[in-house]
Amino acid sequence: MSYAKQMLATTPSAFEFDAAALAECIAACVDCAQACTACADACLGEDMVAELRKCIHLDLDCADMCATTGRVLSRQTAYDPAITTAVLTACAAACKACGDECASHAEMHDHCQVCAEACRRCEQGCNALLGQS
Amino acid sequence: MSYAKQMLATTPSAFEFDAAALAECIAACVDCAQACTACADACLGEDMVAELRKCIHLDLDCADMCATTGRVLSRQTAYDPAITTAVLTACAAACKACGDECASHAEMHDHCQVCAEACRRCEQGCNALLGQS
Amino acid sequence: MSYAKQMLATTPSAFEFDAAALAECIAACVDCAQACTACADACLGEDMVAELRKCIHLDLDCADMCATTGRVLSRQTAYDPAITTAVLTACAAACKACGDECASHAEMHDHCQVCAEACRRCEQGCNALLGQS
Amino acid sequence: MSYAKQMLATTPSAFEFDAAALAECIAACVDCAQACTACADACLGEDMVAELRKCIHLDLDCADMCATTGRVLSRQTAYDPAITTAVLTACAAACKACGDECASHAEMHDHCQVCAEACRRCEQGCNALLGQS
Repeated sequence: MSYAKQMLATTPSAFEFDAAALAECIAACVDCAQACTACADACLGEDMVAELRKCIHLDLDCADMCATTGRVLSRQTAYDPAITTAVLTACAAACKACGDECASHAEMHDHCQVCAEACRRCEQGCNALLGQS
Repeated sequence: MSYAKQMLATTPSAFEFDAAALAECIAACVDCAQACTACADACLGEDMVAELRKCIHLDLDCADMCATTGRVLSRQTAYDPAITTAVLTACAAACKACGDECASHAEMHDHCQVCAEACRRCEQGCNALLGQS
Repeated sequence: MSYAKQMLATTPSAFEFDAAALAECIAACVDCAQACTACADACLGEDMVAELRKCIHLDLDCADMCATTGRVLSRQTAYDPAITTAVLTACAAACKACGDECASHAEMHDHCQVCAEACRRCEQGCNALLGQS
Repeated sequence: MSYAKQMLATTPSAFEFDAAALAECIAACVDCAQACTACADACLGEDMVAELRKCIHLDLDCADMCATTGRVLSRQTAYDPAITTAVLTACAAACKACGDECASHAEMHDHCQVCAEACRRCEQGCNALLGQS
């Protein structure tokens, strides 16, 4: 359903990364940003919200970092490798921290289980591109 | 691939909208935000960039408005109907304007064709929820 | 300290709005987005976090809507009045709802008092521009 | 006019950084995000837009990265040092690249001069916090 692959196929600009890996990472970023936003909201609705403060904080940070990374990767015209590498590194760090936190209480909260999966997929997508740059 | 449906199925909070329509609108918003960001970048790479200023402007506005709407809709805990209605209305307006502009040169630029489809789908998703509220 | 006024003074594009009102509204939007983000975080740190769910939700929605509005208003090249009006209307609605909520417990939480002021200022800035369009 | 200082003074949460340096960096991030958004738009309006593609790209990337950093820094409840360090590093890199590009044609375009100053201030703000972490 994501348009990332189609947009890369129709842009006039060349890009450095493998097209499939780039499209997957863009999709992983925008999907993870949504999952983290929704997980923060679901945590806020739990009876034990006071114990989920760290999870909410990490969800919100990870949502913002993934959204920015999805945007930066969607821009390939007059590409700058230094920014992309720094942004991918920060996104992988955010996904690692948020994924670990969500995984730690995934048995109790199904939304944290889904969010942890989204974070792992996005972390892998970022690391795959970092391996190419 | 989107997690919107799974996140809605696992949140402890009740929501006002039909779950399928809500999940579809959230996915349409985040996908349209990505398509618009990529379309602005593709337009920037075209030889005739000077004639695509209006398209780039509308792409950037629509990307921001869709991203915000996807986030607002992802939050259902302690829901406020007034904000949601106003945000959906603004998002439908942004998608209408951007979709019309992209459609007007879709024959020349394939990325505008893809982006116009993303805008139409998102506009419909917003209007479907506005019809329920 | 904000650069909004200087940027408007140096852009080659004409704009429809009064420059002072436009610069004030842009600054009010970006400052309100920051205040709302910080207020959500401060609420999350309160002992009574479970009673502040509505405030946190509205803070997060208002932060996103104000950030988007600040961006839309910062773009005056090939300007589209329909989007701007819809976005300003949604932003004023978000600031009204968040400002009312924050004001309702401003006596108990100083961060809500500051945030309510930021929301009022931004709501007024949006309404001032809506009165010109 | 920024509320960052007041919000830090009223949050119940402790924070690791020096309050003045943290407030300055938050304000620098949100102001730089606005300047970069406006500079991209001003570049789009220039007759020589085709020669400003790299500047527009860097402006848009820097705007997103600064906005995310301003949000991450505004969240101090249940703080995670790993994310903050990675995000500050990416933001400093984005500000360096965008500031250098804008400075390179600051004599021709006054908006690039203003934007270069905003980028330098934000880069310094990020590096000041990195020196404390």
